[in-house]
Amino acid sequence: MPLAPFAVSLGDPAGIGPEIVAKSWVMREARGLPPFFAVGDAASLRAVWLGPIAPIGSPVEAASVFDKALPCLQVADAGAIVPGTPSIDGARTAFQALEVSVGLARQGSAAGIVTAPVGKEQLYGVGFTHPGQTEFVAERCGVSAHNAVMMLAGPSLKVVPITIHIALADVPSVLTIDLIRARALTTVKGLQRNFGIARPRLAVAGLNPHAGENGALGREEIDVIRPAIESLRAEGLDIFGPLAADGMFHARARETYDAALCMYHDQALIPIKTLNFDDGVNITLGLPIVRTSPDHGTAFGIAGTDSANPGAMIAALKMAAEAARALIAYG
Amino acid sequence: MPLAPFAVSLGDPAGIGPEIVAKSWVMREARGLPPFFAVGDAASLRAVWLGPIAPIGSPVEAASVFDKALPCLQVADAGAIVPGTPSIDGARTAFQALEVSVGLARQGSAAGIVTAPVGKEQLYGVGFTHPGQTEFVAERCGVSAHNAVMMLAGPSLKVVPITIHIALADVPSVLTIDLIRARALTTVKGLQRNFGIARPRLAVAGLNPHAGENGALGREEIDVIRPAIESLRAEGLDIFGPLAADGMFHARARETYDAALCMYHDQALIPIKTLNFDDGVNITLGLPIVRTSPDHGTAFGIAGTDSANPGAMIAALKMAAEAARALIAYG
Repeated sequence: MPLAPFAVSLGDPAGIGPEIVAKSWVMREARGLPPFFAVGDAASLRAVWLGPIAPIGSPVEAASVFDKALPCLQVADAGAIVPGTPSIDGARTAFQALEVSVGLARQGSAAGIVTAPVGKEQLYGVGFTHPGQTEFVAERCGVSAHNAVMMLAGPSLKVVPITIHIALADVPSVLTIDLIRARALTTVKGLQRNFGIARPRLAVAGLNPHAGENGALGREEIDVIRPAIESLRAEGLDIFGPLAADGMFHARARETYDAALCMYHDQALIPIKTLNFDDGVNITLGLPIVRTSPDHGTAFGIAGTDSANPGAMIAALKMAAEAARALIAYG
Repeated sequence: MPLAPFAVSLGDPAGIGPEIVAKSWVMREARGLPPFFAVGDAASLRAVWLGPIAPIGSPVEAASVFDKALPCLQVADAGAIVPGTPSIDGARTAFQALEVSVGLARQGSAAGIVTAPVGKEQLYGVGFTHPGQTEFVAERCGVSAHNAVMMLAGPSLKVVPITIHIALADVPSVLTIDLIRARALTTVKGLQRNFGIARPRLAVAGLNPHAGENGALGREEIDVIRPAIESLRAEGLDIFGPLAADGMFHARARETYDAALCMYHDQALIPIKTLNFDDGVNITLGLPIVRTSPDHGTAFGIAGTDSANPGAMIAALKMAAEAARALIAYG
């Protein structure tokens, strides 16, 4: 059975979202992309792209026109669109596009959602109260933000940061056995459901240099990380560590695990962005729907210059298709 | 004028040092290595290698025999050598080999030193009181440890960690404007003297995710890192940042700087070891002599099994030769 088409929210109309979605459609055959449709204001595509756009009234129309034109589900009028210059109407449109996309995926009329980047500052100005799109999507899916996990995945590596957008100084006190356990359990389930890995292997990074050298360089490994790992192993998980973080991301080390659990933002994002800067994908684990997004921002600075690289959007579309197929197989 | 030969201290006789030094000698022509001589106990080479060894009485003898045999300057008797099982006599030999090597480089009879790995625990047992070989070498050169800088350098990247072997929780309080300035100034001088880069470009990482997002995710960028950078720019240095650490190590970003200054151990070592795990070199900047070492430990676990990879030792020898030539050119 073919997958339903994917809903691709265009993100901020003044960012690079519309451009990379249009460029992805152009490369649909060469890159083997699944059918998808844009969600937002068609005018934001028009502002940066001269190719064929097919307005659609509902997702079912997308599949039949996808060959010939980029299907677009209009959700709002973003007003005058100036690439690179975000506006209130644009933010409202981005918000609605996200909301509509999640709803379509929840109903099953979209196989999943791929979200182009939004401007958080702009969204906050129109009543958006979540830290980011991930938390909003989780809430709309009835999942607590605690149980939704951000994974960054590329061809070379999959990483999950256990803490994310907090100051480095706050990381040690935020890490708890419970938090590590929750992230690990969601990650294992996500690798099974969205990647078809029956028995995922998780590598866990230490927090301190050399994973603390038995306490000489910090005690978090002894007091928090190791107990979390041991309790998960006792429950049958294939999880090991804490490892010295600097030695776990080279090619041979990466062969020993399916995903790396990292203690803080940069510990996870430095290696993935070093290896897969142009094709890293953000996939949310723990949701009832498939959700991916390119791992970059709105790039207002280059919007409208036709220079945005669609690599990460293309990778996000491909990963969404794989995740949706794995989910069906998982049942 | 040809360079004097390099002094290569064999490190712990029971570690992989002797093996990787012997393997490097075997590949001297294929890899274009400069003439060098081993410093330690020839028996530690014999224990793991059947090739030709030429005992020498002083460095000047090394050049003429280097073609036909691995020159070895005997400094002590390490007693019975069992690869993988460190001993007191072995640690004493490692200590003396290091001391003699530094002395020869200080006199100019060696063009520089390359230090094979030692077991710190073992060294502490024989009266070694420095945190590591780097600090010992600095002291013997009359340089305060504060002014000696550890740089990790590979074909893809050069990084300097501003703080090194301390718990992650302690990093924010140890970072000061003065410390960042000292490390940056030594790094610039080192890039000039040892790498022949007339006007080095330094990229500086932030401490927090997204380099703190203007204070929303931590204030160290505003209070410490930015003032340090600004004062150095005012003095004419080509230095920029603070940058989001996760976005500064991919291929295109690396083209914009000669070295990255990082705030803590793993921020520096994750990217270099991800990219250059087998050929990363530790080079000490700020010394009157050239000193490099392979960026790995004694690996007691595989010593004596003929399975150690000499890649990093070979890279350390090549980098030592380049650094010595640059130093002569710098004058």
